[in-house]
Amino acid sequence: MKTIKIKSVELNGEPVDILIEGNTIRRIAGYLADEADVVIDGHKKAVIPGLVNMHTHSAMTLFRGYGDDMPLMAWLEEKIWPNEAKLTHEDVYWGAKLACLEMIKSGTTAFFDMYAKFSSIAKAVEEMGLRAMLSSVCCDFFQPGQRERAKTHVAKLFAGMGNYGQRIQFALGPHAIYTVSGELLQWLDRFSEENNILVHIHLAETEAEAYNSVKQFGYTPVRYLNQLGMLSSRLMIAHGVYVDDEEIQMLAGSGVKVVHNPASNMKLGSGIEFKFVEMRKAGIPVAIGTDGCSSSNNLDMTEAMKLASLLGKGWRKNPVVLTADEVFFAATAQGAAMLGIKAGRIEEGYLADLCLIDLNIPAFTPNFNFASNLVYAANGSCVDAVICDGKILMQNKRVPGEDEIMERTAAIAYNLMKTT
Amino acid sequence: MKTIKIKSVELNGEPVDILIEGNTIRRIAGYLADEADVVIDGHKKAVIPGLVNMHTHSAMTLFRGYGDDMPLMAWLEEKIWPNEAKLTHEDVYWGAKLACLEMIKSGTTAFFDMYAKFSSIAKAVEEMGLRAMLSSVCCDFFQPGQRERAKTHVAKLFAGMGNYGQRIQFALGPHAIYTVSGELLQWLDRFSEENNILVHIHLAETEAEAYNSVKQFGYTPVRYLNQLGMLSSRLMIAHGVYVDDEEIQMLAGSGVKVVHNPASNMKLGSGIEFKFVEMRKAGIPVAIGTDGCSSSNNLDMTEAMKLASLLGKGWRKNPVVLTADEVFFAATAQGAAMLGIKAGRIEEGYLADLCLIDLNIPAFTPNFNFASNLVYAANGSCVDAVICDGKILMQNKRVPGEDEIMERTAAIAYNLMKTT
Repeated sequence: MKTIKIKSVELNGEPVDILIEGNTIRRIAGYLADEADVVIDGHKKAVIPGLVNMHTHSAMTLFRGYGDDMPLMAWLEEKIWPNEAKLTHEDVYWGAKLACLEMIKSGTTAFFDMYAKFSSIAKAVEEMGLRAMLSSVCCDFFQPGQRERAKTHVAKLFAGMGNYGQRIQFALGPHAIYTVSGELLQWLDRFSEENNILVHIHLAETEAEAYNSVKQFGYTPVRYLNQLGMLSSRLMIAHGVYVDDEEIQMLAGSGVKVVHNPASNMKLGSGIEFKFVEMRKAGIPVAIGTDGCSSSNNLDMTEAMKLASLLGKGWRKNPVVLTADEVFFAATAQGAAMLGIKAGRIEEGYLADLCLIDLNIPAFTPNFNFASNLVYAANGSCVDAVICDGKILMQNKRVPGEDEIMERTAAIAYNLMKTT
Repeated sequence: MKTIKIKSVELNGEPVDILIEGNTIRRIAGYLADEADVVIDGHKKAVIPGLVNMHTHSAMTLFRGYGDDMPLMAWLEEKIWPNEAKLTHEDVYWGAKLACLEMIKSGTTAFFDMYAKFSSIAKAVEEMGLRAMLSSVCCDFFQPGQRERAKTHVAKLFAGMGNYGQRIQFALGPHAIYTVSGELLQWLDRFSEENNILVHIHLAETEAEAYNSVKQFGYTPVRYLNQLGMLSSRLMIAHGVYVDDEEIQMLAGSGVKVVHNPASNMKLGSGIEFKFVEMRKAGIPVAIGTDGCSSSNNLDMTEAMKLASLLGKGWRKNPVVLTADEVFFAATAQGAAMLGIKAGRIEEGYLADLCLIDLNIPAFTPNFNFASNLVYAANGSCVDAVICDGKILMQNKRVPGEDEIMERTAAIAYNLMKTT
């Protein structure tokens, strides 16, 4: 098995040597005499687990900056939906490659994705070396014909999972309660139970969604899913901004997981009073996501951690809540646990999914508190090297082939929008 | 006069050549045949005016990450004040050098500072090549003895301004209404009128300040300054979170300027509902600042622009307000205008204070909307080169001497805190 040794890198403020064997962190000690196939100098660097981005739509890097500062519906109807309708597998493949590149460069090693054209995204992720749980977005718009097609499509995708390596996992991705019927939601829930896979859904994201849910279904979004019997430890909701105290107890009691997307919640004006603290107190696992690049507009989890903390402190007028350590946990160990992978910690026996952080920059000067500097002072550009599944994906801030990926994706994006 | 030519750099989406002569942008055209002493290749780069950070306490880089996630008063009393009391001129000089380095690396060419040990900060700024308006922080804690010493100190500093070059300007820096008596505030106002200089003050930053102002003086903070006769076009307030509609009209009517500090307002839990839109509508000049590194915890104006926009959209639940262009204006031309310098625009005849932005990164891929990508997708690491006053301060993301500055400052900071 191939071995990598990282020499003299900072871990919790102390220099250590780390030995990686295959895809696993094998040993960590002050000094390791072991030889290795590759030796990386960790001097003036710190090691952290790879960040875990728990909600994004990777191929939407293609739409970065295409229609900002617009009302939500006009943006979707004029800018996003007409262009998404034109996307080919090739487009989605390159969009996802750019997303992976951006994630590697900012220290993300695993992510949860929701989009169409599953196989092209999977191909991009496999080539780029990251780990991902991919859900094929699923809608029926309350139409029986579309519902049956959606079921067939999901079953076919799941049956084809044997074609992918172990870095790719499958999940179900019903878009939202306003685009997916209760019948399809319940079918997906049964499918997830039978096959032991996660269901990911946008839920309780905006005031309008919460209002319409009561109007259309007679219940607020969380209570509606509860009525459908959908609340379970296989359910993971993105956003969850409009959730009251009783609903927090419902979510906690049934083991539902939540993903906070502070940048997108702010930029789209969805709502800022995400109840991170109350959810954690109730025992709900809460991870962090960037959302897609057309709403947030980057995939930088370092920034997402800072926003999660500052936003939570801000609306509560309380500087003590949502510490750097708490959001770092949410963006690493918690996300990894949600994906069911043994990652998100720098410990012997864990997957070798990790980043080296460049400490020789102003953001880490002085370095009284590494977590504070990472979350509050740094940004994704502090990541110097990335290893995922025991493979080196980036060193000295360069990813092999990055120029080609940027050139190809930009050309595809310009060509798409030109023909709108 | 020394000349610099930047060849084929993007400006508003078009490639241009820019000729700098001495400290001035002399010519901008699609092609310039002129020879120059230095030629910079602008290929795959865009040019922007240097960013203007309108509120910081530069030497507080020394306290970065030293006491986060704490209640405000405990943080000040246990962490900041005891250590500030120990600062020597040498400490402040190195702290300010690190701040200048961090600002250069993230594209800031001019800033407004408020701190003690004026001459050491001025020396650091002069050496680092930036432009700054420096105010010596001024308090009397309502003590007549301290008041007289403060007046003498201010007058002496102002009299010594001939010792500094034209990149350093002087301003008055009364700390806040709860640390500076009305008598001293009025004396400073008269001094500012007689000498035509600005007065910078922290105002209406927290609920507690607003509450105590009513209790102690019988007026809210803005009305109290109005009663003192302090509202004028020479007054620039930092924060201004607790300001009602009538107070906005008072500020606008008297020409007062405001600096928004979104990161610090969020992280310290001061308050998030800063009325950027209403102030601009009323005609108030609004610029952006990072605040000091012990509250925010970096000096990255790119991040400050994003936070200003996202926070404003977020609490209003309105994605249309505070566009990328608006916050970019606030962080460039508006800040420069407040400092009274002919900068903040890439136009012939303006000061050669500018940055080259590296477009060959994911944040600018694709590049449908440069301002959107700069504000919403990028961070300070996109800055490749910085020119201030016609001098090259950074090229290829390296500032000469940066390693020494980081090493020295870290050593000073560790030594300070060790002896706490």
